[in-house]
Amino acid sequence: MSGKKPSTATPQQRLQEASQWWTTGIVDIEPGKIGIRGYPIQELIGELRFPEMVWLMLRGDVPSPAQSALLEAAMVAGVDHGPHAPSIAISRMAVTCGLPVNGAMASAINVLDDVHGGAGQQCMELLQRIATRSGGNEPAAGDVEAELDAFIAAHGKIIPGFGHRFHGPDPRAVRLMQLVRDAREQGVVGGHHEKAGALIEHTLAARKGAPIPMNIDGATAVIYSELGFAPELGRGLFILSRSVGILAHAWEQKQQGGRIKGPMPPGIPYTYNGPAARSLDRERPPAT
Amino acid sequence: MSGKKPSTATPQQRLQEASQWWTTGIVDIEPGKIGIRGYPIQELIGELRFPEMVWLMLRGDVPSPAQSALLEAAMVAGVDHGPHAPSIAISRMAVTCGLPVNGAMASAINVLDDVHGGAGQQCMELLQRIATRSGGNEPAAGDVEAELDAFIAAHGKIIPGFGHRFHGPDPRAVRLMQLVRDAREQGVVGGHHEKAGALIEHTLAARKGAPIPMNIDGATAVIYSELGFAPELGRGLFILSRSVGILAHAWEQKQQGGRIKGPMPPGIPYTYNGPAARSLDRERPPAT
Amino acid sequence: MSGKKPSTATPQQRLQEASQWWTTGIVDIEPGKIGIRGYPIQELIGELRFPEMVWLMLRGDVPSPAQSALLEAAMVAGVDHGPHAPSIAISRMAVTCGLPVNGAMASAINVLDDVHGGAGQQCMELLQRIATRSGGNEPAAGDVEAELDAFIAAHGKIIPGFGHRFHGPDPRAVRLMQLVRDAREQGVVGGHHEKAGALIEHTLAARKGAPIPMNIDGATAVIYSELGFAPELGRGLFILSRSVGILAHAWEQKQQGGRIKGPMPPGIPYTYNGPAARSLDRERPPAT
Amino acid sequence: MSGKKPSTATPQQRLQEASQWWTTGIVDIEPGKIGIRGYPIQELIGELRFPEMVWLMLRGDVPSPAQSALLEAAMVAGVDHGPHAPSIAISRMAVTCGLPVNGAMASAINVLDDVHGGAGQQCMELLQRIATRSGGNEPAAGDVEAELDAFIAAHGKIIPGFGHRFHGPDPRAVRLMQLVRDAREQGVVGGHHEKAGALIEHTLAARKGAPIPMNIDGATAVIYSELGFAPELGRGLFILSRSVGILAHAWEQKQQGGRIKGPMPPGIPYTYNGPAARSLDRERPPAT
Repeated sequence: MSGKKPSTATPQQRLQEASQWWTTGIVDIEPGKIGIRGYPIQELIGELRFPEMVWLMLRGDVPSPAQSALLEAAMVAGVDHGPHAPSIAISRMAVTCGLPVNGAMASAINVLDDVHGGAGQQCMELLQRIATRSGGNEPAAGDVEAELDAFIAAHGKIIPGFGHRFHGPDPRAVRLMQLVRDAREQGVVGGHHEKAGALIEHTLAARKGAPIPMNIDGATAVIYSELGFAPELGRGLFILSRSVGILAHAWEQKQQGGRIKGPMPPGIPYTYNGPAARSLDRERPPAT
Repeated sequence: MSGKKPSTATPQQRLQEASQWWTTGIVDIEPGKIGIRGYPIQELIGELRFPEMVWLMLRGDVPSPAQSALLEAAMVAGVDHGPHAPSIAISRMAVTCGLPVNGAMASAINVLDDVHGGAGQQCMELLQRIATRSGGNEPAAGDVEAELDAFIAAHGKIIPGFGHRFHGPDPRAVRLMQLVRDAREQGVVGGHHEKAGALIEHTLAARKGAPIPMNIDGATAVIYSELGFAPELGRGLFILSRSVGILAHAWEQKQQGGRIKGPMPPGIPYTYNGPAARSLDRERPPAT
Repeated sequence: MSGKKPSTATPQQRLQEASQWWTTGIVDIEPGKIGIRGYPIQELIGELRFPEMVWLMLRGDVPSPAQSALLEAAMVAGVDHGPHAPSIAISRMAVTCGLPVNGAMASAINVLDDVHGGAGQQCMELLQRIATRSGGNEPAAGDVEAELDAFIAAHGKIIPGFGHRFHGPDPRAVRLMQLVRDAREQGVVGGHHEKAGALIEHTLAARKGAPIPMNIDGATAVIYSELGFAPELGRGLFILSRSVGILAHAWEQKQQGGRIKGPMPPGIPYTYNGPAARSLDRERPPAT
Repeated sequence: MSGKKPSTATPQQRLQEASQWWTTGIVDIEPGKIGIRGYPIQELIGELRFPEMVWLMLRGDVPSPAQSALLEAAMVAGVDHGPHAPSIAISRMAVTCGLPVNGAMASAINVLDDVHGGAGQQCMELLQRIATRSGGNEPAAGDVEAELDAFIAAHGKIIPGFGHRFHGPDPRAVRLMQLVRDAREQGVVGGHHEKAGALIEHTLAARKGAPIPMNIDGATAVIYSELGFAPELGRGLFILSRSVGILAHAWEQKQQGGRIKGPMPPGIPYTYNGPAARSLDRERPPAT
């Protein structure tokens, strides 16, 4: 027996410790029975829509149809932004290296990190700080100014969720914010985060003297915040959404064929800026 | 310039080669415009359901509502099977190592490979061989027998999609096959793969003298085959589904806390069966 | 043409931009020629030891034999700490899911993140802050106290590199620090980080009233700092080292066999602490 | 208690089953003691060279210095082949997405699969089939012809380990084969795989009417086979080697900066070859 931390526990206690080591409130399984957050799985299949299942798994309750529809719209919006995105390119490159779809998706999803996949989460954190400052009321311009300044002091001048290297107004954000407005008017969401998003956009434009429109990360951050998701789950929901594009591109690449596809065709060189050719013997340091 | 394969192409030609190196029929992007399979993204947001978007991305057309509902049921069914599944356990372990959700999901999705995530794909391949042998007609018992024998000869006696180490009848499979039956009666699907699945189940039971019921991999394989997906996409759809559970467990583990969580609590030893303690000097081989 | 940011550049300029997009000072390749940091690869093969090649790749110069030997000792020390470590367990679990060694290693290496793989890096950052405070002189006890207090204020009371959940004195750390001492006496390293490490150990013991001995992360942090590596490379070197164990366990598991190996045998249950069984219909919220 | 397979085992038996679930002959750990293949770790640190530790971990014994030197030469040879290689490009792209080195390395190592990382393994399998056919004697030309034909029939005409899209003679392979020859002359290796490699090269050139020289995958396959490694470990050793380049490029990219680096600069478009712009409403299929 190896690797055992000294212990005076009985076998029964150690066994119980092992069971508790893996504790979950998500899924309960017995032979012939699978309960998801308490619901028998067979009652959910064919009844719950996929976004409702996502919500149930992440939060433990079932959303209203209108909440589910808003979540679904946000998840539909983010599936793909083409092979210039590192995640999509990596998925395609991976397939040409011999990987099946699980491996291609893993390598690609892995890079949806702070910079490539974290903008929505960071925007949600900003929205929540504004909400805290507003004390449950509709945020005022001053709340937004103060939190923007604090954010810039801490993280620099790039405000996640606003501006796009490529698009001016992002057509996805425009449409999503329309849906948020509709949902607010129907009482589905409260609208404070929507208001904060609009104030951030207004403030940035005023400071810059040019529009820095909300992008998809900002719009989904507003939606996920309005629906009450924690910021880190904003990243998670984006990953579930972008996984669709990652899979579609992996599959398309597989059908196209190709072996060991690098980032650029071999006819285009890369730049070497290191030392000129040299010989080992002449420069090797003497042994100490 | 480094790494350049010799070429006589002009800059214009090499540039075009670079553009063609990344060719896709999935997404077309211009400033302010994103087209998904030709559809402006803003027309899809709030209009397409998530499973419809999955279908559009993977196949290029939009399914009927009934087809989408069947796909959705299958995707809802597979989200989770608890922490005894390596994928779920890895997601939770990863979080305690410091990973954000993208990293936890990547490490976990990566292991949905041939054995843990490929059963559905393999079952779909079997179903399609039966369909080919049946020549477009409803499969006969003999078609199934012949392809089962061929499968066993090639891959061994475990038939993917049938039997479960844990459940007898799998409640997910029972419910899904009910939905397939309904869809067939409504003309949504043809029912040949459903029939093949039933014949496999019947044949295995007759051979074994005991039921080896269809499991969730078998039921989703029937559905994805009825809907016309390629087998490898069966694995991809399973990954999209199981990703929900992987994310939910990552998030739950994060809230529970814990650092560097191994597979078992430190009070339970592992077994060492290697050489007894020995000293390097006595056994080291002489230099040649 | 899709995804193109508007530009007035000529094809020649855009081609050059592509070449510069991938710029490196590490490796220069022409047909028949591979230069590593300027050295023809064929001059290095059979001449450089593996740790020397690691150093050359990471830093651009070749270390002295004594520096290389110290680096090698640290890399040898960290190869494995058994299947209670999440990285090792994940590697083994991955193989039973059907992954080849590259996939098993990827899933495992991925979790060597801040908590499971970052202790050495964090300890190096602490050592370098102490060095900065000491202004190039041997650190005094007060320097160490001040930086320890600052570290605890920022990150909490766990000091990375000291104490072990399992070992008292870590036999790897004891041996490595002996080698550092030898290297300092021979003039290979300066010894300021060694001194800082000893002062941290002393201070922690005095504060706690009990020994909190330096562990392997602390000892390798001292060595890598003495050799002049940046802290993030401390994590990288640990990964190169631990990869050996990850590969060895993947291979051993493959020879043992097993399918879909979860964290615990199926005879040991996990704990479900979620809602009791409930029915969807009764609790479903009405549509808004 | 959830997920428990019915069992009549006692707690003591179930606990033992858990310990046996994780069985290894590689590392034995007790408080204050770490044994690697039976050797106390502190006896190995500062004594074993890194390639010797790799060998000990993978195989359980310590190689001779000459065997270790040959292994080391092969591991030094494969560290990098520039950013046109998908693995290296992915490592760099990953860093610009916000990943630390462990994540960048994981995404990159993951793609060292059958096509990008499996050539050496496949070549080793070919060499071992030739060795089996030769019955322990030096392989004859006929043995090589027969196994080449069988390989081509099974896998197609690309022979892994021979030919290079970029180099003519691969300077790494030339140097490595020189070292194999030296080792054979000194009795370190038997030379049968070296001979087989030469015969393959000769046969391919004769069939093609032009040289298809052995590349680095072929040369390392010869070396690892001569040293007695299993083919899958050939892939593993390549990964340990290439991990050095993957880490070096991740680190260089981090110092260069850059955010969300795609495969090509945004000034170079990709090609869209999908459907022209269309509207959802007109084409949507009617509900069934």
